[in-house]
Amino acid sequence: MRDCPRLFISPTGTPPMAVDGMLDLEPGQAHYLGTVMRQQAGAAVEVFNARDGAWQGVIDHLRRDRCRVRLVEQTRAPASTQGLCLLFAPLKRDATETVIRMGTELGVVRFRPVVTERTNTHRINAARLESIAIEAAEQCERLDVPTIDPLEALPMMLSQWPDDTALFAALERSPQHAMPPAPRIGDSVLIGPEGGFSPREHDMLRARPFVRPLSLGPRVLRADTAAAAALALVGAGLEAVCGTGL
Amino acid sequence: MRDCPRLFISPTGTPPMAVDGMLDLEPGQAHYLGTVMRQQAGAAVEVFNARDGAWQGVIDHLRRDRCRVRLVEQTRAPASTQGLCLLFAPLKRDATETVIRMGTELGVVRFRPVVTERTNTHRINAARLESIAIEAAEQCERLDVPTIDPLEALPMMLSQWPDDTALFAALERSPQHAMPPAPRIGDSVLIGPEGGFSPREHDMLRARPFVRPLSLGPRVLRADTAAAAALALVGAGLEAVCGTGL
Repeated sequence: MRDCPRLFISPTGTPPMAVDGMLDLEPGQAHYLGTVMRQQAGAAVEVFNARDGAWQGVIDHLRRDRCRVRLVEQTRAPASTQGLCLLFAPLKRDATETVIRMGTELGVVRFRPVVTERTNTHRINAARLESIAIEAAEQCERLDVPTIDPLEALPMMLSQWPDDTALFAALERSPQHAMPPAPRIGDSVLIGPEGGFSPREHDMLRARPFVRPLSLGPRVLRADTAAAAALALVGAGLEAVCGTGL
Repeated sequence: MRDCPRLFISPTGTPPMAVDGMLDLEPGQAHYLGTVMRQQAGAAVEVFNARDGAWQGVIDHLRRDRCRVRLVEQTRAPASTQGLCLLFAPLKRDATETVIRMGTELGVVRFRPVVTERTNTHRINAARLESIAIEAAEQCERLDVPTIDPLEALPMMLSQWPDDTALFAALERSPQHAMPPAPRIGDSVLIGPEGGFSPREHDMLRARPFVRPLSLGPRVLRADTAAAAALALVGAGLEAVCGTGL
C-alpha cells in the first residue's frame, strides 16, 4: 500500500529537481490531488521521472487546477527501465488500453503500434494512450514512462529492422510453448491482431533471420492476454540472462 | 479466424452427442446466433464440452430464443484442460472479470476466490463470472469450462491445504524473478488483493511448507496483470515438466 500519491513529472521544460526546489504541477495533477485525493497544503507527494529519480515533496499550495510542490529529498536515484519493445496491432479501444497498461507494468520501454493485414483499427489516440502509460508508471513505481510510436506498416518496419536485434513473434500455437531463447535488452516482442497474422505475413515473418517464433501454448489467446503472457515469459528470460529486471 | 460460431453446451441434463442427434440450445445462445451473428437455418456451428468433445453442427431451425442444431460429426475428441487452480482476492468488477477471462485463456481449471485482510469486495457475482468463463472458453477453443468456487477465507483454505500440492504465491518483488520450480498439474497460483497481503498474511504464507514464493519482477503489478504473468510463467514451467499444455 502506498502512503502518498505518486506523480510523473515530464522532464521536458522542467528544471532539474533539487532540495527545496519548487515544482508547479500540471492542471490535471492539481485537480487529481485536490478533488480526487482530497489532499491539502502540507500533504506529502512523491514526484518522479527517469532524469531526476524519485523525490519526496510537500504540497506548498493547492488551489483548483494549480499546485506547487516543495521538493524535500531524493528517495530514489535516476534510472531507466531496461526493457523490451512491444510491437502490437491496434485493437478495440479497451483491449489496446489493456495492452498499454499491462505492458507498462511489465516493463515495456517502447510501444510500436503496427498495421497488419487484419488490423481493423487504423487510428490510435496517442494522447489517451500516453496518459494510460503515465498512470500505469505511477502505479507500478517505475521512474520512466514508455514511449508510444506513431503507427507503422509491418512490412516497412521489418524491412528496416536492425539485424542484431531479435523480434520474438507470437506466431505459433503448440501444446509445448518453449521458453524464449536468451532475449537481450532492446529486443522486441510482436503480437498480432485479433484475427491473427495472415498467411502472407506468417511467411514474411518466418523468412526473416531476426524473427524468433514464440508459442504461448495450445489455446487461442486474445491479443491483450497474449501480450501480457509473452512479456512475462520474455521478461523472465531477459532477467535470467542479464540479471536485470525487465 | 474462426469460420463458425462456437458454443459451449453444458453436459448436465444434455444427452451424449451423436451423429444426427438434435440439440436444443439455450435461449441466450439462440438469441446470439440469430440476432447478434445473423445466422439462419443451414448455417454451421461448432458445439463442445469436455464430455462430448467438439462437434460440427448445422442449424436445423432458429426462431427468436429457440434454436435446434443437428449434429453432423465429431471434430475433436473429449478432453479436459490439464491445468492449474487460481486463488485470487476479488477485485473491482472489471479487474475480476479480466482475471476470469485471461485465466480461462491461460488454462485455469478452477478459480478459487479468497477473502484476504485487504479484500474490499466480499461478494462475487457467480453467474456473471461463469458467463465470462464460458465466453472465454468458446473463444480460446478449449473444450472445458473452468469452475468458479464460492468465496472462502484465506486462513481456512490454508488450514485445509493438501500437503502434496504446491501453492505458488506472488509474494515478492525482486529485480530477479526466478522461474517457478517444477510445478505439477493440480498445483495452485495465489494472487493477492490490490493492496497486497498484510504482514500477518505474509508470515502465515511463508510459514506453510507448500507455499512457493514467486516474484513477478521489480515493479508493483496490478492484480489482473499479476495473475496473467504468474499463470504464463507457472504454465510454461508446467509444460516444461509434463510436456502438456496448461
